[in-house]
Amino acid sequence: MVSAMIRFDVFTLFPDVFVPYLDSSILQRARQNGLVEVNLYNIRDWTTDRHHVCDDMPYGGGGGMVMKPQPIFAAVEGVLGAPPACPVILLTPQGRVFTQAMAEELAQQPHLALLCGRYEGVDERVCQHLVTDEISIGDYVLSGGELPALALIDAITRLIPGALGDPDGAWDDSHATGLLEYPHYTRPPVFRDWPVPDILVSGDHAKIARWRREQALLRTYQRRPDLLDKAELSEKDRQFLDSLHQEDTFPES
Amino acid sequence: MVSAMIRFDVFTLFPDVFVPYLDSSILQRARQNGLVEVNLYNIRDWTTDRHHVCDDMPYGGGGGMVMKPQPIFAAVEGVLGAPPACPVILLTPQGRVFTQAMAEELAQQPHLALLCGRYEGVDERVCQHLVTDEISIGDYVLSGGELPALALIDAITRLIPGALGDPDGAWDDSHATGLLEYPHYTRPPVFRDWPVPDILVSGDHAKIARWRREQALLRTYQRRPDLLDKAELSEKDRQFLDSLHQEDTFPES
Repeated sequence: MVSAMIRFDVFTLFPDVFVPYLDSSILQRARQNGLVEVNLYNIRDWTTDRHHVCDDMPYGGGGGMVMKPQPIFAAVEGVLGAPPACPVILLTPQGRVFTQAMAEELAQQPHLALLCGRYEGVDERVCQHLVTDEISIGDYVLSGGELPALALIDAITRLIPGALGDPDGAWDDSHATGLLEYPHYTRPPVFRDWPVPDILVSGDHAKIARWRREQALLRTYQRRPDLLDKAELSEKDRQFLDSLHQEDTFPES
Repeated sequence: MVSAMIRFDVFTLFPDVFVPYLDSSILQRARQNGLVEVNLYNIRDWTTDRHHVCDDMPYGGGGGMVMKPQPIFAAVEGVLGAPPACPVILLTPQGRVFTQAMAEELAQQPHLALLCGRYEGVDERVCQHLVTDEISIGDYVLSGGELPALALIDAITRLIPGALGDPDGAWDDSHATGLLEYPHYTRPPVFRDWPVPDILVSGDHAKIARWRREQALLRTYQRRPDLLDKAELSEKDRQFLDSLHQEDTFPES
């Protein structure tokens, strides 16, 4: 079951980059309504040397710097105790790849710690002895775990009951249904020379629902056929997909 | 070839959320050094009504709001001309999934426009008649295209020559080589009871290089075997992977 309230503790060298995103739109409202609490901790505050150094050269040579274990352990254990009672998630390209299903799984936790790597990465002893889960938001290289942490907070918060103004909002979204979303149109009915599809102004709600479902299936089939394997499909959906497949196979017919 | 300088024009309803990320670390330095220029435009500034409304109800009913076509066309064409001379990328869960290979492809462009969707999405006529590419950063639902746009700017900027202090930094990263990265260690040599692996303090650079390569292969094999199909592998790499595979197949031997 999705938690009614989730607390995120974020450990980062760049707490400032989180602030305006947390202060806008859905996250701002969810925080104001007590559905989500986000605490930002600067790992640098737990350094013990005069220059507050958080990184050091890698053993074995090579480019880049590595985040030292001491300030990270001190920060996370200082806030959460040792060992921490909640999952400690490292945002790293090494992790399992974040999906909407994983957001739903994590939204069942009342408390999550997010640790943002920087530079070449964190000392491996942090991964082995402090971190309980490693998550990547995709197969590309970013400068740190800050954008990934915000992506997790955003995706998970949207699942908390009441976080979205509109109760259907989260469900219709792409990936929430396992399919890409159908196309959206709003006013004006004709923009430049381009009208909205007739069916959307027909007032026939059953036909509109069927059209939208078929558009979602068509789009997923064309753009992301890999998603169809895992999507929940009705018999009617399968017949529609079969008809698309036949068109592809016999383009002349 | 990767561009020597890239200009990003970002169209969004939330320009403020970009500022601190652009003002920190690698992106700040790249902007100061003239390697990258990021211009933020608030789509709301191109509305023509008194209340600066950017969204409206969807045709055909259903929850959520849809971004109106007029302010988006006016903003993008107002800044870039009609039709825009550069790619116009919509950040949307409907798009092709962003990868490091796609970052390398986009880094060859001197000028990119990024359009951030919000709410249920943008009017489909924007996708059909203004947008030239649709990109998703992963299979999860976010509140808008702002974090995805920042992810693109970050990943692409890192590829511009000189953007990273260390010339090897980008190359060693996870996904840049097509494999997950080997583990990193820094001082102290023993943290709590946990020593760094002996080989990393051996001074034998050939052995260290081989160990790191094997660790990267092992980790990719264990966590993301799907990546091995596309990675560039040497004969030695294949022999190592075969040995792992045999261990799995005959765990008793």
